[in-house]
Amino acid sequence: MLGLDADDTLWENEERFHEVEARFRDLVSTWADGETADAALLATERANIARHGYGIKGFVLSMELTAIELSGGAVTAADLGRIIGWGHEMMAHPIELLDGVAETLDVLAGTHRLLVVTKGDLGDQLGKVARCGLDHLFWHVDVVPEKDPEAYRRVLAGRGIDPAEFTMVGNSVKSDVLPVLAIGGRAVHLPHTTTWVFEEPDPDEVAAVDFPVLGSFRDLPAFLDGGDPVS
Amino acid sequence: MLGLDADDTLWENEERFHEVEARFRDLVSTWADGETADAALLATERANIARHGYGIKGFVLSMELTAIELSGGAVTAADLGRIIGWGHEMMAHPIELLDGVAETLDVLAGTHRLLVVTKGDLGDQLGKVARCGLDHLFWHVDVVPEKDPEAYRRVLAGRGIDPAEFTMVGNSVKSDVLPVLAIGGRAVHLPHTTTWVFEEPDPDEVAAVDFPVLGSFRDLPAFLDGGDPVS
Repeated sequence: MLGLDADDTLWENEERFHEVEARFRDLVSTWADGETADAALLATERANIARHGYGIKGFVLSMELTAIELSGGAVTAADLGRIIGWGHEMMAHPIELLDGVAETLDVLAGTHRLLVVTKGDLGDQLGKVARCGLDHLFWHVDVVPEKDPEAYRRVLAGRGIDPAEFTMVGNSVKSDVLPVLAIGGRAVHLPHTTTWVFEEPDPDEVAAVDFPVLGSFRDLPAFLDGGDPVS
Repeated sequence: MLGLDADDTLWENEERFHEVEARFRDLVSTWADGETADAALLATERANIARHGYGIKGFVLSMELTAIELSGGAVTAADLGRIIGWGHEMMAHPIELLDGVAETLDVLAGTHRLLVVTKGDLGDQLGKVARCGLDHLFWHVDVVPEKDPEAYRRVLAGRGIDPAEFTMVGNSVKSDVLPVLAIGGRAVHLPHTTTWVFEEPDPDEVAAVDFPVLGSFRDLPAFLDGGDPVS
């Protein structure tokens, strides 16, 4: 039984957010420099993550609130409408599978049952799975609001899976590795080019555990077949 | 195995939306009369439901777009920020269980496994389940982006349930009754005071099937125990 993260593990995601953050800096540049804009947006996201959740719609609402705040209410309705349009663009963006994912998943589907465990907007995440062209390889897809030990416990119990027989693969140590180790599963870290600041794990928690790190999705079959972890 | 809808079956929901729609009419009253505002908001929701999904965040984004459109871009950033605040209020609103739900669920949990099947924002729906005080009575909670036959088929397959042994209870003929009958399950209609226009079923589809309608959640145990349907 193999668990797979989706965003930035199977396909590109962070990059979409970074592109829009650059447009946002530009939109509010009359009132704030780039660093101030980034910091203000991050603070708004942090303050609202519990109610907005992860995903594009919450990101759009946070950009709106930050633009209103930074401009002291002077930002135009047209610009605020433009931000919603960016969100719609993100939702419709073609899926860009990461290197080696398509051919490797094809191999893995022959040896493992594949369970996608991802967080974000429900419809957006399921839509990406449906559009990615690999839907037929997945056993089930579970979208959760937060990837903590309790969420993994619920997902595995709901699917009748013993954590001791579960291995999770993902790009986030905080969301894909630590909570799975905490409930007695195994986890493999597959770093992506960038890590969102909200996904930075507690260094003490990381120091207390040991987990394999692979350089490429292509390394998974050999590793799961008993090959040595890279680190 | 008993399936339960949540919004407007277990707790009040439509009313929250109607209250905010009234505030919205007021906010845009400089540019549009109430009827025009309602029609424009509905048109925006309809145009965006596939990407926004059901739920509060999509509703907020639709109000923003409609206010910008109706005002020709003249609505202020402060007013657009106010709309987001309404959404936050809705998310934090205390749960109001409908009449008889708490005591009846307690009885039903002794005779059935209870599976909540609901649509909307993932975090918002799970948050309401967690806050409603009845969480311990539910076997599982599945949030789906759309309640069509395929969604029910997936949910039941994922939980290892035979549709023939599944009865769904809910206030929406379109979302809780017709798709369940379509996959060979049973369904009970429990009408709420109002029905959202998006939930109005196709009259031809309704005429082609026969299903029981109960007047109160309190009637469920007797009905499931073999009592006669009301209609």
